[in-house]
Amino acid sequence: MHLGFACLETGLTRAKNAVNILFKNISIVAIGTLTYTLVGFSLMYGADVTGIGLFAWDGLGVTVNAADQTAAYADGAYTRWSEFIFQAMFAATAATIVSGAVAERVKLYPFLLFCMVYVAAIYPIVGFWKWGEGWLHVRGFHDFAGSALVHSVGGWAALAGVIVLGPRLGKYGLNTKAILGHNMPLATIGVFLLWFGWFGFNGGSVLSADPDAVSYVFVTTMLAACAGVVGAGVTAQVVQKTPDLSMVLNGALAGLVGVTAGADVLSVPAACAAGAVAGVLVVLGVIGLDKLKLDDPVGAISVHLICGIWGTLAVGLFSAEHSLLEQLIGVAAVGAACFPAAFAILWIIKTTLGLRVSRDEELRGLDLGEHTMEAYSGFQIYLTD
Amino acid sequence: MHLGFACLETGLTRAKNAVNILFKNISIVAIGTLTYTLVGFSLMYGADVTGIGLFAWDGLGVTVNAADQTAAYADGAYTRWSEFIFQAMFAATAATIVSGAVAERVKLYPFLLFCMVYVAAIYPIVGFWKWGEGWLHVRGFHDFAGSALVHSVGGWAALAGVIVLGPRLGKYGLNTKAILGHNMPLATIGVFLLWFGWFGFNGGSVLSADPDAVSYVFVTTMLAACAGVVGAGVTAQVVQKTPDLSMVLNGALAGLVGVTAGADVLSVPAACAAGAVAGVLVVLGVIGLDKLKLDDPVGAISVHLICGIWGTLAVGLFSAEHSLLEQLIGVAAVGAACFPAAFAILWIIKTTLGLRVSRDEELRGLDLGEHTMEAYSGFQIYLTD
Amino acid sequence: MHLGFACLETGLTRAKNAVNILFKNISIVAIGTLTYTLVGFSLMYGADVTGIGLFAWDGLGVTVNAADQTAAYADGAYTRWSEFIFQAMFAATAATIVSGAVAERVKLYPFLLFCMVYVAAIYPIVGFWKWGEGWLHVRGFHDFAGSALVHSVGGWAALAGVIVLGPRLGKYGLNTKAILGHNMPLATIGVFLLWFGWFGFNGGSVLSADPDAVSYVFVTTMLAACAGVVGAGVTAQVVQKTPDLSMVLNGALAGLVGVTAGADVLSVPAACAAGAVAGVLVVLGVIGLDKLKLDDPVGAISVHLICGIWGTLAVGLFSAEHSLLEQLIGVAAVGAACFPAAFAILWIIKTTLGLRVSRDEELRGLDLGEHTMEAYSGFQIYLTD
Repeated sequence: MHLGFACLETGLTRAKNAVNILFKNISIVAIGTLTYTLVGFSLMYGADVTGIGLFAWDGLGVTVNAADQTAAYADGAYTRWSEFIFQAMFAATAATIVSGAVAERVKLYPFLLFCMVYVAAIYPIVGFWKWGEGWLHVRGFHDFAGSALVHSVGGWAALAGVIVLGPRLGKYGLNTKAILGHNMPLATIGVFLLWFGWFGFNGGSVLSADPDAVSYVFVTTMLAACAGVVGAGVTAQVVQKTPDLSMVLNGALAGLVGVTAGADVLSVPAACAAGAVAGVLVVLGVIGLDKLKLDDPVGAISVHLICGIWGTLAVGLFSAEHSLLEQLIGVAAVGAACFPAAFAILWIIKTTLGLRVSRDEELRGLDLGEHTMEAYSGFQIYLTD
Repeated sequence: MHLGFACLETGLTRAKNAVNILFKNISIVAIGTLTYTLVGFSLMYGADVTGIGLFAWDGLGVTVNAADQTAAYADGAYTRWSEFIFQAMFAATAATIVSGAVAERVKLYPFLLFCMVYVAAIYPIVGFWKWGEGWLHVRGFHDFAGSALVHSVGGWAALAGVIVLGPRLGKYGLNTKAILGHNMPLATIGVFLLWFGWFGFNGGSVLSADPDAVSYVFVTTMLAACAGVVGAGVTAQVVQKTPDLSMVLNGALAGLVGVTAGADVLSVPAACAAGAVAGVLVVLGVIGLDKLKLDDPVGAISVHLICGIWGTLAVGLFSAEHSLLEQLIGVAAVGAACFPAAFAILWIIKTTLGLRVSRDEELRGLDLGEHTMEAYSGFQIYLTD
Repeated sequence: MHLGFACLETGLTRAKNAVNILFKNISIVAIGTLTYTLVGFSLMYGADVTGIGLFAWDGLGVTVNAADQTAAYADGAYTRWSEFIFQAMFAATAATIVSGAVAERVKLYPFLLFCMVYVAAIYPIVGFWKWGEGWLHVRGFHDFAGSALVHSVGGWAALAGVIVLGPRLGKYGLNTKAILGHNMPLATIGVFLLWFGWFGFNGGSVLSADPDAVSYVFVTTMLAACAGVVGAGVTAQVVQKTPDLSMVLNGALAGLVGVTAGADVLSVPAACAAGAVAGVLVVLGVIGLDKLKLDDPVGAISVHLICGIWGTLAVGLFSAEHSLLEQLIGVAAVGAACFPAAFAILWIIKTTLGLRVSRDEELRGLDLGEHTMEAYSGFQIYLTD
């Protein structure tokens, strides 16, 4: 999964910032996982300390006791350790989503600090509300594998980051300029890897090894991604009059995000519909955000926030067992917690450490500026030799 | 798997057509899967409506009833849904094979239309003959994971496509010119991913989770791929006097295709032999097709058609339980159905919608022509900066 | 895994040698696997012919008898065939490690000959000492998934190769010159794929499908890799004053190698410590080897030899059940067997067939010299068009 994000984000941005993005993404995985290990898991799956499902705590570090394991994972094929490693990946994913939206202009270490705080505190508290059996769980909110709890959590922070940072230089001058990616094969590799990884993501979220349930989730996941591709491709053809590869790539991801909340409960046609609508939404989202002068280089807000919200609501719309109202409450609660928190953390970092690289560095590229190295070193000499 | 095909095909062709190929490949997966869901699965695994195993139908959409599931998948680890998702992948693979052979000159939407029709109608009807327990199955034809039913089905259509379209401009002038791939690391990534995906492909075709059978199939698959690499490498060294990377890459795939029909029944030495012969055949095939002025940019016909036929026959040659005659009948029946059908569909599209891009567009590249974007946008500025 | 190595090695070296490296890596997998099948498995898991655990032999080819299978793999989820395919991968990995260290100057066929001999004879004999239940096993030496038996075995040969070959032209002139990689996204893809593959590597080494044990190994593996990233990143920042992407990439691998020997017995904090120390060591190793004028283009010696030794010793340091002395004996015995053997084989090849390409070929690049093709053919024309 994380390789997928790294490829997609690098491919869709400019060559002069590629090392920076790769460094950022591999660091986020490391820091996010370690932070989640230290405090996140305890905040998310610990014992409720409020009595009303708002906040949990089990002490520092991963504590997995044998009784817990025996009780909760009686079928034996899925263990507390699996759940931990799985959730650590989710946590790092939420942070990685932000990374794409702030790419090509954010300072490295301040951004990593933001990720650390967000993964340590915000992500697990919100996650506890549902997956730690907190108040949203009690109300009957349904989010199978994180349309709201992972993707919209990351998406809200991405939105906050884009607002706090402002657009890249030259993006919105007299005209809005498309800043094209430098390596579309790399971006495509990224999307296919994410698509493949999603089977693990959603399949693993079944929380058991029941082959029937797992294989059903594979089917809904696959079909929603395909429908997302078609939805985005058709929309891009109609609106932009061209078969736009980047839109189709984001369409696949949109379909996947759109089915993530309901992959276990949606029927086959409903999964296709959820994916197709997500594909349409992502194209409109990308165009709409540009109109609002919100500069999101890879379309992370459209994919993860807009389609994350859509996917969560789709459960209420298409599944008779779940209430649209409860899904709306869940979406709103996640947003009400995440956006202000992300905004506040980013704003504090901005006013203390600074969050954006200098104008000069942005123009020369962050690779030379922050890393004093280039992504394609010696490539020019090779080509002209 | 599909990522593998996309990388291989893009890497082995020219940079100016990369976006087009990536777009084509991601679209085929989406369209192929959705089409297969709507009509293909029903045609392939439905109830026989002729009484002699020629044609099946269960109605539109995926219908998986509980009785069917319980009866056919009693061991519980492999479900009807697994089979569906698996077969949908196979169906899309058959279409993707064609894509490589017609690359760099085919029109986007007409080609996608061809894929839709081929996956909807031809692939599942032929597949039903064996895997849906039709007439080939009754006669004792053996094709474990699709040397004939997937690879040669795709390969026949690839051959038809190459004939109907004609060669790329400049390929066969006074001399036959090798048009080299623009990104060999990308092509290599593609082959390794396909290699890895084949374990899923062949392993999954065991149709059960019996670890002994699955692990045996892994062994034959792995060894055949290795033997294919050696077979192709030695042949290329002898014939071309150079260690040719593209031949070795195709050799790995040739070995894999060559063992696909018999991965479950071939002995370890027989699997090595099947792979090695496939490696030799693929090199001779690529050279031979060029002599015939059949322009297949990525070697898809050699890999999938020639080695698909070889692999199917190898079961009859090397396995005492299977008859070479029945394997020959199977190969011939698949060819007799697929080649004329593919040729007819392509010819109808050619005479109505047109199938080939204009001379100008081919020279400038399909990326600017069809997509108005480039695969490596801004790369030149980066390098000369 | 092997794709990971191929990407990493290609990305970290120069574009003019990319085809050569890709060819080398795919060939090693094929030749290594076939050689291991023919003699290696028998040498490694055969019957002890010395009575003191020094040497085993079961005849040519893979012999897996039913009794053996039933006795040793009673739980049924892991079979003798799984073990074979798994070990064949390990064997090829040991050879691939060498490939990176000798890149950009080694002759193709002589190097492949070395790999064949090393995988046929040295790797399995040393492996037998522990995994074939030879003398190291009897003494209580612990190496879960090959810090010593795979990584240091490859690392010792890498060291021998670097010494026998000498540095690349221009590397150590008046000043030591960093020869930068030509494609950092490709190198990053390589590391993430290796990281992902390691879950298979270490998870599979549990030799059973006990979900609890497997998932615990996933946790230690993941955390060590993350700690390796942080350890290497911090060290590089302190020593080199820059966030160095190649160091962080090697840090992830260092953490993985460092936890490989003890992934099953280390506690969570110990796994983090093992990974973090490995991350520090790899940076110091890369810098130190350059001071010794040992030219290892991709850092293979630092990652696999230094961290392989560290990981093996870490088991003795951090696990109460294992003795540091026995771990030291194991490390020393592996080194005493592998380094002289590798050195001798390479020296014999050097004096007979020659091991290094000509000065001219090295300057022009091995792609044109050995393969008469380029990795990025036509790319320049595309960019300037």
